[in-house]
Amino acid sequence: MSDLTKAFGDRLRELRTKGGMSQEQLADAAGLHRTHISLIERDQRSVRLETLERLAAALRVQPHELLVGIKAGMKRR
Amino acid sequence: MSDLTKAFGDRLRELRTKGGMSQEQLADAAGLHRTHISLIERDQRSVRLETLERLAAALRVQPHELLVGIKAGMKRR
Repeated sequence: MSDLTKAFGDRLRELRTKGGMSQEQLADAAGLHRTHISLIERDQRSVRLETLERLAAALRVQPHELLVGIKAGMKRR
Repeated sequence: MSDLTKAFGDRLRELRTKGGMSQEQLADAAGLHRTHISLIERDQRSVRLETLERLAAALRVQPHELLVGIKAGMKRR
């Protein structure tokens, strides 16, 4: 995965725990599987924008808030 | 695709043209194929966070700026 997906996983966990939600509660609210949440938080699964959208809605934040403070690290293939 | 991926495609085109870049120039800078850029702008391809990261770096913006102003539309599966 990339620096951004790692930072995203950390950010997701931060917002989830700040909101007092378990991985299961977040998964239910977002219409995802709990394992999917766990994999994202541990940077072991690629995240699509559709998933980011579901997570933002479940956490009641705007989509860009899930990326605020995350800097781009330029990677070349 | 979702409301967010549609809005993302529009936002990408906006930032790209504002920066005076062609799809090919953006593709080169991001290490992606021009067709990939074209598909994203037309909301015909799912976007992963790794791709968003490359695009942000190529456009010299922070990752969250690609999503600013884009609202989440809650969708249930």
